[in-house]
Amino acid sequence: MAGPLPVSPLALPLPVLPPIAGVRLATAEAGIRYHGRTDVLLVELAEGTAVAGVFTKNLCPGAPVTYCREVLPGGQARGLVVNAGNANVFTGAAGARAAEETAQAAAATLGTSADKIFLASTGVIGERLQAQKIVAAMGGLKANLAEGGLEAAARAIMTTDTFPKAATRTARIGGVDVTIAGIAKGSGMIAPDMATMLSFIFTDAAIPAPALQAMLSKGVDHTFNCITIDSDTSTSDTVLLFATGQAGNVPTEDPGELADFRRALQEVLHDLAMLVVRDGEGAQKLVQITVEGAVSNASAKRIALAIANSPLVKTAIAGEDANWGRIVMAVGKAGEPADRDKLGVAVGGVWMAQAGGVVPGYDETPVVKHMQGREIEITVEIGLGQGRATVWTCDLTHGYIDINGSYRS
Amino acid sequence: MAGPLPVSPLALPLPVLPPIAGVRLATAEAGIRYHGRTDVLLVELAEGTAVAGVFTKNLCPGAPVTYCREVLPGGQARGLVVNAGNANVFTGAAGARAAEETAQAAAATLGTSADKIFLASTGVIGERLQAQKIVAAMGGLKANLAEGGLEAAARAIMTTDTFPKAATRTARIGGVDVTIAGIAKGSGMIAPDMATMLSFIFTDAAIPAPALQAMLSKGVDHTFNCITIDSDTSTSDTVLLFATGQAGNVPTEDPGELADFRRALQEVLHDLAMLVVRDGEGAQKLVQITVEGAVSNASAKRIALAIANSPLVKTAIAGEDANWGRIVMAVGKAGEPADRDKLGVAVGGVWMAQAGGVVPGYDETPVVKHMQGREIEITVEIGLGQGRATVWTCDLTHGYIDINGSYRS
Repeated sequence: MAGPLPVSPLALPLPVLPPIAGVRLATAEAGIRYHGRTDVLLVELAEGTAVAGVFTKNLCPGAPVTYCREVLPGGQARGLVVNAGNANVFTGAAGARAAEETAQAAAATLGTSADKIFLASTGVIGERLQAQKIVAAMGGLKANLAEGGLEAAARAIMTTDTFPKAATRTARIGGVDVTIAGIAKGSGMIAPDMATMLSFIFTDAAIPAPALQAMLSKGVDHTFNCITIDSDTSTSDTVLLFATGQAGNVPTEDPGELADFRRALQEVLHDLAMLVVRDGEGAQKLVQITVEGAVSNASAKRIALAIANSPLVKTAIAGEDANWGRIVMAVGKAGEPADRDKLGVAVGGVWMAQAGGVVPGYDETPVVKHMQGREIEITVEIGLGQGRATVWTCDLTHGYIDINGSYRS
Repeated sequence: MAGPLPVSPLALPLPVLPPIAGVRLATAEAGIRYHGRTDVLLVELAEGTAVAGVFTKNLCPGAPVTYCREVLPGGQARGLVVNAGNANVFTGAAGARAAEETAQAAAATLGTSADKIFLASTGVIGERLQAQKIVAAMGGLKANLAEGGLEAAARAIMTTDTFPKAATRTARIGGVDVTIAGIAKGSGMIAPDMATMLSFIFTDAAIPAPALQAMLSKGVDHTFNCITIDSDTSTSDTVLLFATGQAGNVPTEDPGELADFRRALQEVLHDLAMLVVRDGEGAQKLVQITVEGAVSNASAKRIALAIANSPLVKTAIAGEDANWGRIVMAVGKAGEPADRDKLGVAVGGVWMAQAGGVVPGYDETPVVKHMQGREIEITVEIGLGQGRATVWTCDLTHGYIDINGSYRS
């Protein structure tokens, strides 16, 4: 690409990010691929920090994903190292060694063991990660560790992202205020060159790892796993949730006591996932697709994703065309129970088709106006049951071709 | 769209098409949607013609597909009516009536019963097909029926196609020469507005319907079902094979006696499928993807299609970038058995990656040159078994966005 990408028209400003007790961050310019910008992040986590994680389902994952999966069952974290510019994917034994060396160096720097260090890498695939550049940066990173570095962290992990992404909420557990703050990067649901989705969420709440993992897994299911840019699945997608326990609440796994925290976590995950879609490669419109009346929630989600991943639906939206014929096609190709004579399609709340046919004499004016906006809402009624799901995507534009069709420079 | 699309740079000229004994064709301007061009095709088939068919797996099929599925078990055909401009999809009971009326009119015109008439429609979705326009054209069509109208037929069924598509072969059955000739249309693997894939193949061979069906189903599996433009599945895809029995061979179902016919049919299906890919919306390059060493042929095909449908792989090819990282990503997202440390990727016959890593010091020069050509060959070695499959697709370019992102006019 010649020069930086223009900032997405769907970008939102960074919120004010509070420090999280027990979390200290530092960024540095390690020169892994980029120059003149930060590209490595070190996070120090207080003794006793619990951790939960979810990772890509891609069967050819990067070395850092393999590493994290190995140490996650311990449930404890003392550090996190993230680099941008090289994904350390498809690098064989050398990749595993680079991950191990990075973890060892971070462990020594933070005075802990490598099985409490978590790793993530994002950037080009198939080139060896020069771990020594990260190792060499450790001293400087340690010296700069400070609370309140989340905004700088959000910038250091960017690749093809056109804006930094963060979200925060507060909640109460047993009468004690706790805070959640998270950062994310990603702008293709994945472009393995550059645009893997990574997210790191920190809280000062005291929550044991198993309860943390349950909440994260369920939360991701309705947020990050409900967004798609281009149907491609990164080799490196990683979401990690760290709970330092510094807020002073009594540690609890009780679902009732955690209800407010669960709500707040869900909102943070939702916000971060929406920010990734808003930075979808070439995105001009944010699209919400709700499927109702499917035979189950899982069926509704599969239908919704078939619509969201259809290039024909996405190009129609780019063209501001409320093309319900393509939506019907996508419902049919999902392979889920559907009856063409019961289908309904609404755009912006206006039903264009119902019971298998065009709504006679429906007024196209509000639909045309809605399609010209930045945020598009599509609702599909299947008419067979109570299953329901909402997913989010963006349109497919010339910008996507520009970003992904240019020769690697 | 403003004006006609430029002819695909991958277009091939029409072959000389022989008449098929027992097949008479006529085209007419019925004015269903287009003006100043033919848009309806009537085919009269000799008494005793056997028929085989395969149809879209989309669960919201058009009325003509439903109609054909109902009459196909009879195994006999006397006529075929095809219209372009309106797909008769998502039109409810009115759509079923339009199909019925068309079939009744054709049956009366050809002096047969409606259960021996086959139908196909392609064009916009969700608008009522005005069957009376087709019915009104029947008299003129009958008067014009003639052998040797295949080229005109190939043109009459086009929608967003940029060139007409046909293929022909000869074969011997029991010492008798038989001829096969087929036509096709389609330029998105589907754009339901306009670009459904239809193919009609005619032969003068005498082959009973069950044997014909078996050969067609198997043949389609390795040809039309191995091509993808954009992963979307039409509501109207239809392939019909008619055998008039006029060549004079002794009717046979013996696989040995049919071997040469099977070879010739396979070649016709292959040629027609390749022509559809060559007219893929916005296509600048024809891409052949072969997966070897998978755990089974079915697994190899799923992996190959995951690569062929990946927007990131397709945009990389458009950018003439031999981006094997994206190919590895696509292998991983296919969900089939794969081991990243055994993967190999070759482009244009040159292995870029083997055994899970870049081939040290490989010469990029021939790969770069290959990527700049019109026909791209990608081979992926999985390294786990003997499973093998080849699929074909095209690149994803600005042209695709132009064609599909413009407002319906």
